[in-house]
Amino acid sequence: MTVLILTSEQDVTADMVVAALHLRSVPVMRLDPADVPGKAVLSADYAHGDFDGHLSVNGHVLSMGGLRSVWVRRPGEPAAHASDSSSWLTAETRQALYGMLYSAPTRWMNHPRNADQARYKLWQLRIAHLSGFAVPPTAFTTAPRVAQQFAEEYRDVVVKSASGPPPGDPASALPTTLIGPGADFSTVAAGPALLQRYVPKRADIRLTCVGPRLFGARKRSAPGQVDGRYGDTGYAWETTAVPDRIAKSVQEYLALSGLAYAAFDFAEDEDGLWWFLECNQAGQFGFVELETGQPIAEAVALWLAGRTGERRVPESRG
Amino acid sequence: MTVLILTSEQDVTADMVVAALHLRSVPVMRLDPADVPGKAVLSADYAHGDFDGHLSVNGHVLSMGGLRSVWVRRPGEPAAHASDSSSWLTAETRQALYGMLYSAPTRWMNHPRNADQARYKLWQLRIAHLSGFAVPPTAFTTAPRVAQQFAEEYRDVVVKSASGPPPGDPASALPTTLIGPGADFSTVAAGPALLQRYVPKRADIRLTCVGPRLFGARKRSAPGQVDGRYGDTGYAWETTAVPDRIAKSVQEYLALSGLAYAAFDFAEDEDGLWWFLECNQAGQFGFVELETGQPIAEAVALWLAGRTGERRVPESRG
Repeated sequence: MTVLILTSEQDVTADMVVAALHLRSVPVMRLDPADVPGKAVLSADYAHGDFDGHLSVNGHVLSMGGLRSVWVRRPGEPAAHASDSSSWLTAETRQALYGMLYSAPTRWMNHPRNADQARYKLWQLRIAHLSGFAVPPTAFTTAPRVAQQFAEEYRDVVVKSASGPPPGDPASALPTTLIGPGADFSTVAAGPALLQRYVPKRADIRLTCVGPRLFGARKRSAPGQVDGRYGDTGYAWETTAVPDRIAKSVQEYLALSGLAYAAFDFAEDEDGLWWFLECNQAGQFGFVELETGQPIAEAVALWLAGRTGERRVPESRG
Repeated sequence: MTVLILTSEQDVTADMVVAALHLRSVPVMRLDPADVPGKAVLSADYAHGDFDGHLSVNGHVLSMGGLRSVWVRRPGEPAAHASDSSSWLTAETRQALYGMLYSAPTRWMNHPRNADQARYKLWQLRIAHLSGFAVPPTAFTTAPRVAQQFAEEYRDVVVKSASGPPPGDPASALPTTLIGPGADFSTVAAGPALLQRYVPKRADIRLTCVGPRLFGARKRSAPGQVDGRYGDTGYAWETTAVPDRIAKSVQEYLALSGLAYAAFDFAEDEDGLWWFLECNQAGQFGFVELETGQPIAEAVALWLAGRTGERRVPESRG
């Protein structure tokens, strides 16, 4: 039974997981969907009464019946490396590759169906609320008056991007900006603004979840710092215990969202309360492992190898 | 409680459903996501302990608590009509609009999460097989040798596109082409080919499913005709009874895929057996209603109005 890792060629984090799988003699196939068709060959058929499928990369063949698990890490766009690439070829290749994989009875970290939904920030807040997390008051609006009222009510407010930083911004720019009620909100009408009550905090928390295993990391905040995930604060990430109440909410969140892997960001306030900020289903863990020594890559490898006692994700059910 | 219809301005099929809802005095809001931000204003917030959201179009306001159901018909791309449209603005607006709608406890026809997965042809065949439909032998491959062997084994084989016709093809071109084993399969290596055993048929079947209601339509085939969905055959669509076995498989398929609406295409062979060809979660029904007089638009309206005794789709669970 083989683990399939979908990622691009340059991916140090995937290298760490592959190494951990090799140590345990678990067969691995690494595939960049951009290399289909071309370096990688695929075939799926229903020719003899039931489904079968094969992937072939560099002479190694993986049968869908022998698929242990799929890790959707950083896959390239299907057919992107083809000599005659086109949006139609990408669409057809996506149909062939993912259609075949979706038809296989396997475990996913994470299934694209669940990953796509988990990217919606408002949905995250809703699921977080249902799971029992403390969620800071938040508004997402195209109405300048609503944005103005929100800022007047909560005074210290941060503005965030929901889909990622706007193009052209320097990578070092802080994606979260603190504003006051005196700001000009008229531009909200031209593009939705995500506003959140600022949580005065003494630390940032990154909680990495690999199936049932939780890795809590904490970084003290520098005074007045808004977004501790970026830039140098003079403090490092350190392992921290995960409160039982949080662990329970995390399991509820993962069950509601169908995620096997997730990286949660919290703000720890002056009273020690963890406020839910967001949950990134594809969040990086390399930097946390490097600074804390937490064996996250190994945990991912063990989950993919199916040695954590996790149930198989059901094939599909609305 | 209001029905929300996501579609573009020019949509005659939506007009039919809107008329049926008006007849029954069911409040309707029609929205093209392309008009957000701009014509339509949205606001969502978690400001007072729980989620709330509003959509405002032409002075009409729809609260998320008053959302009866959502029909995803032919929505434009979010922010496409904005004066300063960009891919980033589209991404942010998609986050705001769909994030808000995903957070509402409502019924979907169809939820985009389920619709996205239901588009994969190989997955369709797998679910069709699990649901008990007869599925013609099919291969989807980038290996010329596999394609060649498939054509040799089944002799009469059709080639299809999985994602839609290639760009530039005339709209009148038949998307399904009959080939023999003597064809040149070398180009398969450059792009995946979807091959299916040709089903010699006496009729095409279009089965339109609206929740639990099934509308069977049948069109006799012209001799030698490969794809009866396109072009004039001299025959019209006529209402046909749906065999019990098919009705049972349809309900299983809808349950497995989480779809509330689906249009199935079958080929009826010389023995009267219906072979599953595909299931289009957004398949048109206007032409069937026009030729057969089946009240499909009314059935859609009744489902959206919540008057068919259907259970509410669960909010989310893996």
